[in-house]
Amino acid sequence: MTDTTIADEGPATTAGPPSDASRVRRLPQRAAYDEASIHAVLDASLIGHVGIVAGDRPVVIPMLYGRDGSTVYLHGSVASRLLRSLAGGIDLCLTVTLVDGLVLARSAFHHSMNYRSVVAFGRATLATGADKVHGLRVISEHLAPGRWDEVREPNDLELRQTSVLRMEILEASAKTREGGPVDDDEDLGLPMWAGVLPCALRWGEPVADALLPEGRPVSPSVLARRNGH
Amino acid sequence: MTDTTIADEGPATTAGPPSDASRVRRLPQRAAYDEASIHAVLDASLIGHVGIVAGDRPVVIPMLYGRDGSTVYLHGSVASRLLRSLAGGIDLCLTVTLVDGLVLARSAFHHSMNYRSVVAFGRATLATGADKVHGLRVISEHLAPGRWDEVREPNDLELRQTSVLRMEILEASAKTREGGPVDDDEDLGLPMWAGVLPCALRWGEPVADALLPEGRPVSPSVLARRNGH
Repeated sequence: MTDTTIADEGPATTAGPPSDASRVRRLPQRAAYDEASIHAVLDASLIGHVGIVAGDRPVVIPMLYGRDGSTVYLHGSVASRLLRSLAGGIDLCLTVTLVDGLVLARSAFHHSMNYRSVVAFGRATLATGADKVHGLRVISEHLAPGRWDEVREPNDLELRQTSVLRMEILEASAKTREGGPVDDDEDLGLPMWAGVLPCALRWGEPVADALLPEGRPVSPSVLARRNGH
Repeated sequence: MTDTTIADEGPATTAGPPSDASRVRRLPQRAAYDEASIHAVLDASLIGHVGIVAGDRPVVIPMLYGRDGSTVYLHGSVASRLLRSLAGGIDLCLTVTLVDGLVLARSAFHHSMNYRSVVAFGRATLATGADKVHGLRVISEHLAPGRWDEVREPNDLELRQTSVLRMEILEASAKTREGGPVDDDEDLGLPMWAGVLPCALRWGEPVADALLPEGRPVSPSVLARRNGH
């Protein structure tokens, strides 16, 4: 599985060519540093995994997020508690991964996974005032476009109970693997099947809340989400 | 979205009752510290997100993994490069998240996500010798049970090119959210639809490698994977 691991590489930069230290090392053809590639992956995933340093150890938390340009808004989290004591902000790593399939080679070594991922670095601060409401809307639209306008907006009490982090992406790279197995020539005659088993996150049928009056139609935003992905 | 965020909580321990510092704070009913709950989530996800501290900043990398008891094997990664210069091992945080659905409430505030996640802490070292081969097999069986015995095993050269990390889980917690929205009583009369839009990772149909002779049957391990999840 070595040459095809999804996990071999470190960060790289979006701004200009990556430095030697941050350049993806083993499989450079899989890396992208342009904003369009990075944004496409960020926009396609439902959740992100956010790394912080707490004390001197790493902590990774799944978080809801949304993107507006090169700003990412993140919802809630242990990070927001840390932030209250760190007015200058906190270093975050936001990583997003979409799994597209298992790559089944003829040798154990060449097994792999098809995927798209982004590793993004930045410094997060607490969003406040109008920016906080905007951030919540961006996160909501990321998860269910159009839903925000269908529901009751947050009131002041709810806003006080909510933390939103705002992170400018300072450095990021996207990495992708696609296509079939790449076996050694001498293994091509082996008798087993080889190929790709695709996978994807799929939506099921909407389940109405038990307290909803019978026959109420599913909201347009939910139908669009259901059918669009 | 506050009370239902997937991202509010820190770590807790598997060994005895969690300390005050690590106890899940806001929604304790969602947290579990028993091994069975933690292992079930680890076994159900294809990939994990691994956090390390590099320099003094957090880095999160998607990684393939597999579990054997309370030992987790991880494949490849930037972490293995760091490990070469850190004989004593490196602190890791492995976080795994399964997204089960969007929770669509009547207010923006009560929107949420159904999910299962585990945050696990431990110290990783490089697996060597027979343990390294065992780790590769554990990772392979995690991704595609039965595949290891169908394909060519790694040779010495391939093993030298592969890094496997071994991590004992020292501390972990599982967190789950399920069910419908929990709206405020005064919002129940609002006219919009509310409920859950379920989602899950689904397998597609196997795609044969272009170099495979026509008509070769799909391997049993791949069929089982396709049909079992």
